[in-house]
Amino acid sequence: IVTKLPKVGTTIFTVMSALASEKGAVNLGQGFPDFHCDPTLVNAVTQAMQDGLNQYPPMAGVLPLREAIAYKVEQLYGHRYDPVSEITVTAGATQGILTSVLCAVHAGDEVIVIEPVYDCYVPAIELAGGVPVFVQMEVGAAGYSIPWDKVKAAVTPKTRMIMVNTPHNPTGSVMRAADVAALADIVRGTDILILSDEVYEHMVYDGQPHESLARHPELAERSFINSSFGKTYHVTGWKVGYVAAPAALTAEFRKVHQFNVFTVNTPVQYGLAAYMKDPAPYLDLPAFYQKKRDLFRAGLAATRFELLPSQGTYFQCVKYGAISDQPEAEFCKWLTTEIGVAAIPVSAFYNTPRESGIVRFCFAKKDETLRLALDRLASL
Amino acid sequence: IVTKLPKVGTTIFTVMSALASEKGAVNLGQGFPDFHCDPTLVNAVTQAMQDGLNQYPPMAGVLPLREAIAYKVEQLYGHRYDPVSEITVTAGATQGILTSVLCAVHAGDEVIVIEPVYDCYVPAIELAGGVPVFVQMEVGAAGYSIPWDKVKAAVTPKTRMIMVNTPHNPTGSVMRAADVAALADIVRGTDILILSDEVYEHMVYDGQPHESLARHPELAERSFINSSFGKTYHVTGWKVGYVAAPAALTAEFRKVHQFNVFTVNTPVQYGLAAYMKDPAPYLDLPAFYQKKRDLFRAGLAATRFELLPSQGTYFQCVKYGAISDQPEAEFCKWLTTEIGVAAIPVSAFYNTPRESGIVRFCFAKKDETLRLALDRLASL
Ligand SMILES: CSCCC(=O)C(=O)O
Ligand SMILES: CSCCC(=O)C(=O)O
Repeated sequence: IVTKLPKVGTTIFTVMSALASEKGAVNLGQGFPDFHCDPTLVNAVTQAMQDGLNQYPPMAGVLPLREAIAYKVEQLYGHRYDPVSEITVTAGATQGILTSVLCAVHAGDEVIVIEPVYDCYVPAIELAGGVPVFVQMEVGAAGYSIPWDKVKAAVTPKTRMIMVNTPHNPTGSVMRAADVAALADIVRGTDILILSDEVYEHMVYDGQPHESLARHPELAERSFINSSFGKTYHVTGWKVGYVAAPAALTAEFRKVHQFNVFTVNTPVQYGLAAYMKDPAPYLDLPAFYQKKRDLFRAGLAATRFELLPSQGTYFQCVKYGAISDQPEAEFCKWLTTEIGVAAIPVSAFYNTPRESGIVRFCFAKKDETLRLALDRLASL
Repeated sequence: IVTKLPKVGTTIFTVMSALASEKGAVNLGQGFPDFHCDPTLVNAVTQAMQDGLNQYPPMAGVLPLREAIAYKVEQLYGHRYDPVSEITVTAGATQGILTSVLCAVHAGDEVIVIEPVYDCYVPAIELAGGVPVFVQMEVGAAGYSIPWDKVKAAVTPKTRMIMVNTPHNPTGSVMRAADVAALADIVRGTDILILSDEVYEHMVYDGQPHESLARHPELAERSFINSSFGKTYHVTGWKVGYVAAPAALTAEFRKVHQFNVFTVNTPVQYGLAAYMKDPAPYLDLPAFYQKKRDLFRAGLAATRFELLPSQGTYFQCVKYGAISDQPEAEFCKWLTTEIGVAAIPVSAFYNTPRESGIVRFCFAKKDETLRLALDRLASL
């Protein structure tokens, strides 16, 4: 059997989580909370199962959940998606991303990808027969930023899609109004589509808005916006997300979706629909995570790590050049094994080898976990 | 946006379920039970959620579930798959089928498909850039059978895969030892892979065995065997299945899987693992459904429908030539609207237009539902 994805191995997240558990390290690598979700949410799913809602839901998702999503998006971003024809529930954002790419990218089409990039983007393009075209973020004193002139220069007549991610994993950077305007300038007058990965939409800090592309009609009309409930509700293992896109794009999305997963777990969908009636859990999330970010940053400030901004997501990137000159992957192994704290090398988010001396910590952890990690890092 | 799947519309299952509910018809169309699953299973999933098992599971599935699957397969079919390297939990069999095809079929490869064929097979081949090559089942007095000489004649140097399905949807036919031997003869000495869709594995009647390809080492070594918990445990909406394949095939499968869905709902996996400790639910299933099949067939025997054999699955196919000369889709609409019983046209399972005067009923229904349907059909 000849491989379709020659470059793919075990993901760095799996590798580091395994090493962390083998070494008894505090796992600040893979992005997932070490605290429990709201029992109200568990009860809502249990109720749905007990009510016998266990057979096939509609292909695009149960209507109450699609309506709850449309309502939330409209309240937060001012754009009304039609729940019937413009919102599709997915088996997590990864499935939404692959399906968006598979339905829109034809063999030979180019897709612009901004590095560092989450690991599922490029295999999705390759499976569609597309060609990834890479642009690298720049990193200065103010943190990571997207060089839009380089994105513009990467556009060719074959460009079919640009993939963006805000808040951004792994850098914790967030697109601002100027970024959105630059993106709009690039695509205006073209038929380039956009895939916007907004799974950390409810984690933007310092009172800033999340610049969902749903806020920007001239971008929304050509965008597949991907989000996820796993991050928002502390249930990364539930694997439910959604894609919002204009009806014409959604129609194509669903053609692939129905022959990929067909549909998504029924009782979980009903449980989420009931739980979403209360907006407090997602409205309170920025404050909840900002406190953890601040606790973690305050602790790291006493070390030789150089802190990059964390404007969003539950990730904190740091430069470790004052501590070690090892390559990032080696440094992470050393940190896990010798110091007892696991982190993720940012180099793992590049397709071409790239060492920046930067690693990523996840602060979606109990305060006591963060304190334990900080105790161990204090010697550095 | 140029479509990737020009031939795809809304599935016949969705169309007929919608018509059935609009007309108040008894829905014997789409295949799903109208009775509840075992509350023990619901409790097991609830327990897992309450135990806080809500974060990312391992990419290939939680080990207790993979071990339970390996144990079951070994007990029933005598083949030991390694749960670590040969079994992957999927977000339903549809996802397992797309992923099997995407990981193995390259652009231009031919895939042999036997019609009538379940609707997700051909789009999976098309998304992989492969070319479906169709062979039609034959239908005689003894029901549907696979003309293996024609399958053999369809093989070319470009043949990458043969897709089989036993028990077979929609025909209710089952592969026997002679079929398996014929398939083995065709692939022996070639590098042709096999995708075996065995989602109805626990529904084979009349004391006959399920000829899982796992029973046949020379086939198992080149097969992706797909199964599903939805059919077996009366939870079609839970969307969990698995793929068993030798380690080399599983390695390629997982490369695509991890960038398709990454992984599958954690608490549902733990719930299923706990529930599988008791083999009674699947061991008792043939007797459970055979009674329903016999009840339904006894009722239909009093009508002008001509009954085809139902050797497996929860489907019963009938010829309606003595009742009407309408095309199958028209007949199903008429039956739903005028008689109040929904069925599925077998023509919907052909890629080239084909009328056989045969429709499919689903008998995975409460006995009272089947009796109500039979009352309505009695006039025919
Ligand atoms: C799918 S496991 C990785 C989780 C995650 O999103 C991350 O750590 O970046
Ligand atoms: C995925 S909806 C169709 C259910 C089914 O397997 C069938 O009715 O054939």
